[in-house]
Amino acid sequence: MSGRLHTQIGFLLEIDKLKQIFRQTYLLDETRKENDAEHSWHFAMYAVLLAEYANEKVDLLKVVKMALIHDLVEIDAGDTFLYDEVGNADKAEREEKAAERIFGLLPPDVGEELHALWVEFEAKETAEAKFAGAIDRLQPFLHNIHTDGRAWGEHGISAKQIRERNGVIENGSEDLWAYAVSLLDEAVAKGQVAAE
Amino acid sequence: MSGRLHTQIGFLLEIDKLKQIFRQTYLLDETRKENDAEHSWHFAMYAVLLAEYANEKVDLLKVVKMALIHDLVEIDAGDTFLYDEVGNADKAEREEKAAERIFGLLPPDVGEELHALWVEFEAKETAEAKFAGAIDRLQPFLHNIHTDGRAWGEHGISAKQIRERNGVIENGSEDLWAYAVSLLDEAVAKGQVAAE
Repeated sequence: MSGRLHTQIGFLLEIDKLKQIFRQTYLLDETRKENDAEHSWHFAMYAVLLAEYANEKVDLLKVVKMALIHDLVEIDAGDTFLYDEVGNADKAEREEKAAERIFGLLPPDVGEELHALWVEFEAKETAEAKFAGAIDRLQPFLHNIHTDGRAWGEHGISAKQIRERNGVIENGSEDLWAYAVSLLDEAVAKGQVAAE
Repeated sequence: MSGRLHTQIGFLLEIDKLKQIFRQTYLLDETRKENDAEHSWHFAMYAVLLAEYANEKVDLLKVVKMALIHDLVEIDAGDTFLYDEVGNADKAEREEKAAERIFGLLPPDVGEELHALWVEFEAKETAEAKFAGAIDRLQPFLHNIHTDGRAWGEHGISAKQIRERNGVIENGSEDLWAYAVSLLDEAVAKGQVAAE
């Protein structure tokens, strides 16, 4: 076996750990929380199905690659809940260190390409990163909506906070944001989510 | 919300069930078996990293889409273990019925595209389907190799059977098949896998 293939396979074995990084989001059947590998697969499926709603035309392969790799840093840095202010304060620093180790496991050409793609995703400046960022928020948002706001309720998160932290969906897709807002208003009206 | 978006979101919520379809493959930490959503994500990552070893040049986006959708039929048809002769006898029929229901949940243009992509994957005739088929076998193969043949051992599967059922890897990638064979020979030599 070539050294290059050995290195690539080593990386593919290492990232199996993503399946043990659990998030705050519940599966729709509410039996347990979702892990990062499942979320990454679902995010990629959302991207394939909803790319037509992106504000700007996107390179779908690039968005899907972002979906597949965007949470790999959490193998070292752990999952930080969107509404955790303390955890989010040093999240960027912890994740950049993780990115260096994890993408550093690959042959340099591929490792640098994927590391740069992750940096682009985090910066939310390109059309692909903005759309991917929208989908990354929309998927757990919908899981909350369809479990009567369960994870939000457990953490005492209000509709006001949800709007603030998910408003970036609009930067990627005005259509998907309008849709999310209508669902949130409905959940507040039903008493499933606290207004403030 | 448009009826089209409503239909697309309905499909994306339905396929959350893939996270509860468990396979015979163990995670590398051996704490539990892997589910189809995790396998699909890992398969897509393998495709991104190993496309350079495909026998023929492949359209990577197409391969990745195959990875993401290839097991959706198991939401209805369940997972069939590769070495289960009885289960494999009517697998095609059960899965085609599942494909009709599941892809039928989508707007017709998208549903027909994804259904056709799944049929292409199953037929293993195009360059993308042959390579995707190789990766779909290689990922669980490596999990077995790196857990001392655990799932194979539990089901009494020999190296002879493993070679027969995984030989299709060669149709997608001669390099990856040569690599797999060398690992299998080593596992037999170490006594981790029965020769016959």
